[in-house]
Amino acid sequence: MNKAVAYLSELIGKSVHDIDTPALVIDLDAMKRNLGRMAEFARKHQVRWRPHAKLHKSILLAKMQIKAGAVGVCVQKTSEAEIMVAGGVHDVYISNEVIASAKLARVAALTQAVAAHGGQIAIAVDSLEGVSRLAQAMSDARTGIRNGTPSTATVIDVFVEIDVGQGRCGVQPGQDAVLLALEIRKHPALRFAGLQAYHGKVQHVRNVQERRMTAADAMKSVELTCELLKAQDMAPGLVTGAGTGSFALEAASGVYGELQAGSFIFMDADYAQNERDPVQPHFEHALFVKTQVVSRHASHAVCDAGHKSHAIDSGLPQVHALKRQEGLDYFNGGDEHGILRPSSGQTGLPDLGQMLWLIPGHCDPTVNLHDVMIGVSGGLKSGTVERIIRVDARGALT
Amino acid sequence: MNKAVAYLSELIGKSVHDIDTPALVIDLDAMKRNLGRMAEFARKHQVRWRPHAKLHKSILLAKMQIKAGAVGVCVQKTSEAEIMVAGGVHDVYISNEVIASAKLARVAALTQAVAAHGGQIAIAVDSLEGVSRLAQAMSDARTGIRNGTPSTATVIDVFVEIDVGQGRCGVQPGQDAVLLALEIRKHPALRFAGLQAYHGKVQHVRNVQERRMTAADAMKSVELTCELLKAQDMAPGLVTGAGTGSFALEAASGVYGELQAGSFIFMDADYAQNERDPVQPHFEHALFVKTQVVSRHASHAVCDAGHKSHAIDSGLPQVHALKRQEGLDYFNGGDEHGILRPSSGQTGLPDLGQMLWLIPGHCDPTVNLHDVMIGVSGGLKSGTVERIIRVDARGALT
Repeated sequence: MNKAVAYLSELIGKSVHDIDTPALVIDLDAMKRNLGRMAEFARKHQVRWRPHAKLHKSILLAKMQIKAGAVGVCVQKTSEAEIMVAGGVHDVYISNEVIASAKLARVAALTQAVAAHGGQIAIAVDSLEGVSRLAQAMSDARTGIRNGTPSTATVIDVFVEIDVGQGRCGVQPGQDAVLLALEIRKHPALRFAGLQAYHGKVQHVRNVQERRMTAADAMKSVELTCELLKAQDMAPGLVTGAGTGSFALEAASGVYGELQAGSFIFMDADYAQNERDPVQPHFEHALFVKTQVVSRHASHAVCDAGHKSHAIDSGLPQVHALKRQEGLDYFNGGDEHGILRPSSGQTGLPDLGQMLWLIPGHCDPTVNLHDVMIGVSGGLKSGTVERIIRVDARGALT
Repeated sequence: MNKAVAYLSELIGKSVHDIDTPALVIDLDAMKRNLGRMAEFARKHQVRWRPHAKLHKSILLAKMQIKAGAVGVCVQKTSEAEIMVAGGVHDVYISNEVIASAKLARVAALTQAVAAHGGQIAIAVDSLEGVSRLAQAMSDARTGIRNGTPSTATVIDVFVEIDVGQGRCGVQPGQDAVLLALEIRKHPALRFAGLQAYHGKVQHVRNVQERRMTAADAMKSVELTCELLKAQDMAPGLVTGAGTGSFALEAASGVYGELQAGSFIFMDADYAQNERDPVQPHFEHALFVKTQVVSRHASHAVCDAGHKSHAIDSGLPQVHALKRQEGLDYFNGGDEHGILRPSSGQTGLPDLGQMLWLIPGHCDPTVNLHDVMIGVSGGLKSGTVERIIRVDARGALT
């Protein structure tokens, strides 16, 4: 057993103070409260909830979410889906376009694999070429070209992605989506399952009224597409989308049947900057980078967490104040360092050796930097390490 | 053998076109040319060269650099040093402050371990407390408190870090540094080895004249400190520092004896934006993210590499033009996507399924996202996969 593995296994049951830095730490109590609030929300609003596992990339957390009421998980990558299935999560939606034939063969093989467990794989498409390639891969798998024991009965659920304002993937709402749905219906191994309609930009609109208006525009696009599908005698199927910033709006829309919100279990610094819509539950920060001051000067202190410890695409991390007098701002110190200065109106700096907690700007890519998350119960001040949670799909890019 | 491992082992000898996306790919021919240029530079200027392994985190590349003439490697983290030593790299300098007692015990153990191979561990300090804690750890290791077979003869080389303008770690140049050197001399297991004087900001000053002036200021601080050390009858020892943006200036200074430049082997998009100083060798881009277009629209295309595939702290990646007519700009598409639009004056967009190559903005944290780098010889257009290079110290943060 190498040192790193020995250290982690010996950590369980020890104090939060024994965690070496920098490290990614989950406040399990806060995370469980967040999970409970979301599960209650979904039950109350009678909406399916399929959290995005691209956030935590953890089989254990996916199963915990399913136990709490989630219908399965979303992922963005074929390799993430493979890891979830291998870990026993059998209802997985790849909410993204897959084009490479080698990857589509793996998707088809997964579809066969989960069918044996009564599970289901779903995927998104936004092109005729994508539908054609997917159908070919499913057909190959059925006829055993790529699989020793093919099932002729397995089908993959296919969602047509529409661009409801993000300007990234997805066909335009309306007739283009209907054409794709009609195309999907031609292939026996594909089942038109509904619409993928996620608006990433809505999630981060700070002002509640603006956020509601932007979400309402997106919903109109979805409604229009549903009407056109019905005009073709097609059931629109399930509309799936929504994130932590907006999901209560989609839940109330009467259009969306499934919420993909995932980030709420950890709540990053960016989401916390949204003005909270009263219709959404409150979520607590539950993911932190523990760090130590390694260099101390008159004007600043330097900690051992830089942007190899946390992602900075949504801004630098915030310093979590465990004590009332703490008021520190984090500045970019490069890959391995963070620079700490007193916040406006504050004067104090932490001592050399002092431990601090950072709230990452964006949880998803932060988690992806770490092999494990250290789960603590009893809080960050004096809690105990309860479990080591592997980031199973860390670096699963393909 | 799981699918990911099988895929990688089967990839060797195959075409560059068979590499699944997104993937981190090294153009080995370009990398070897870069390596040769640096080795020649160091020989010609009679300066030691100790490249920073925080860039590649690879035992294989560290050994390749040592074979080419490097005296050893730098690292930033204790765990990186442990991984290098375990891989047979026995001359390692932790060019950073380490404060945690548990980590310093590991540093002391490493010092003992490499001594058996005629190797040497070095470390930086910038505080009396840091010296005291390091001395205690070395003393504990010597007296066998933390090590079964202590050697009473092993010493650790200690560099005093001075802040030559970066404003991060390091004591102020001059008397503060001398005090630390005098303190180091009091401890039998510590050997004052010289000055750590790295100016990170100089590396990215675009204009040659400005860069030269900023570097000259830093060198004055180093010279002052050396003079004060001599006034105390202390040999200033080795002055170590410099990066890919400035190393020819340090080499010509007559003050620096060791260059830490590492990034030149890969050359990222950020370094390429520096106006090249004629005294520096030319380096080629050698590290790329291979990506595929997975969604195609009238105004833009979407590829499968987002900021889980490459770091964006020094800007978004650039699209590498393999064909003359390619002129694409990369825009942020989130964690798993990149958005491609024609560059100014261009009109073409890549087709659905097309493969593209990205030049990362910053190589160090990009490498840290990947478990492996795929080494290709014969170029990116039609080359062959020659070897899979593990990122051994990926995620080694502590």
